[in-house]
Amino acid sequence: MSERVWTAGVIVIGDEILSGRTQDRNVAQIGIWLNVQGIRLREVRVVADDEAAIVEAVNILRARYDYLFTTGGIGPTHDDITVDAIAAALGVPVVVHPQARAILEGYYAARGGLNPARLRMARVPQGAELIPNSSSGAPGIRFDNIYIMAGVPHITAGMLAELTGTLEGGAPLLSRTLGTRAPESEIADLLRETEKAHEGCQIGSYPFFREGMVGANFVVRATDQARLNACADALKAGLEAAGYAVTEGGI
Amino acid sequence: MSERVWTAGVIVIGDEILSGRTQDRNVAQIGIWLNVQGIRLREVRVVADDEAAIVEAVNILRARYDYLFTTGGIGPTHDDITVDAIAAALGVPVVVHPQARAILEGYYAARGGLNPARLRMARVPQGAELIPNSSSGAPGIRFDNIYIMAGVPHITAGMLAELTGTLEGGAPLLSRTLGTRAPESEIADLLRETEKAHEGCQIGSYPFFREGMVGANFVVRATDQARLNACADALKAGLEAAGYAVTEGGI
Repeated sequence: MSERVWTAGVIVIGDEILSGRTQDRNVAQIGIWLNVQGIRLREVRVVADDEAAIVEAVNILRARYDYLFTTGGIGPTHDDITVDAIAAALGVPVVVHPQARAILEGYYAARGGLNPARLRMARVPQGAELIPNSSSGAPGIRFDNIYIMAGVPHITAGMLAELTGTLEGGAPLLSRTLGTRAPESEIADLLRETEKAHEGCQIGSYPFFREGMVGANFVVRATDQARLNACADALKAGLEAAGYAVTEGGI
Repeated sequence: MSERVWTAGVIVIGDEILSGRTQDRNVAQIGIWLNVQGIRLREVRVVADDEAAIVEAVNILRARYDYLFTTGGIGPTHDDITVDAIAAALGVPVVVHPQARAILEGYYAARGGLNPARLRMARVPQGAELIPNSSSGAPGIRFDNIYIMAGVPHITAGMLAELTGTLEGGAPLLSRTLGTRAPESEIADLLRETEKAHEGCQIGSYPFFREGMVGANFVVRATDQARLNACADALKAGLEAAGYAVTEGGI
């Protein structure tokens, strides 16, 4: 009997990620958080601050996955076009959300007051709900299965914390990591055969080259703890039989 | 007269990026490198180690952009399926490239010899050329406008260095960064109007919240140095007139 697997996509919006000026950190934090919610991140797209590009990605990914998260482009400046683009994708107008306006009035009361640029951050696709922002006033936005988050990673981290436990998901993917100094090319057969012998388990192989040492971390993943351990234990025994010391948790 | 703009897409292949286990570093380094070649990175997709997902992304992006780069999935283990998936997307068979085999034989001569797993790294879509790998033996692969690179960032860095100057491109996008302690929401009008007054220039606004301080870096981009400086100088003067100290190069 196969379980329902819940899935998500992420769209990272921003010229600064594509130019290499800014190192994205949201994909990894959202991927880790989704897994704890029992949801698998299946696909990420990074697109420019360009309405047509955002609309295309939003309409494909919101239909393809159970959940869609976007990051970036919800600030107060002219290059922040995410809300307008998502509203265009949805075919709904953009409106000022009264609660978002009230939040921003409170937040900016001691910071020079609400001006037109700041009020932009109260704009939402009509029918949307807010996602609380514990660190900087301007809220995130939810519309159906779309979660519109900030570009600044610690603000998105706070929004994810607010959402924890509120999304329907399945069984979280469990994992166990085994590190060795083995070149992965010497134990490729063992990896493939161990995975094949353990239904419901996947083994990922992640080589590293550090301080002149060659090695690899093997990550065994499964939703069932007993199956996970049976597979990881078999892999560990196989690595040790081949003469490699194994470090639980990885190197 | 508008210049020809050369474009690229990137596909990052790997479950470990989607799970959040591994922080991608290839998008930023490829984006920066492309810009120096006069090529704009327009779109990135991160997909799982899944043939159908790779085929779909490859066939869309190789047609949409002048160049397509992929990272990841070209190692020796069972989860490395990039070459097979790209060959399937191209409709060509996978063959052992004789020069790649010779490179691997040399590299592994003092490392236990070539075994079937290591020989997997000599497999290419039929008709492909090799991209030299200065750090670990197994080469990258070029087929038409597709550049198949490693997942390990320093190996991809070496492959990019080998490719420097070999891709046809246009004018590199120049940039100047101005940092201030201004909340971006206080100077949004200035940004929009300065951009509008300077044709061929874009201004990106990147807020930060560090050590309790609010501020933003403004990145002015243009292909023409004189236009870039005119726009950045006007923005700097506007920021200073509004009472904000400006740090050239950003904060």
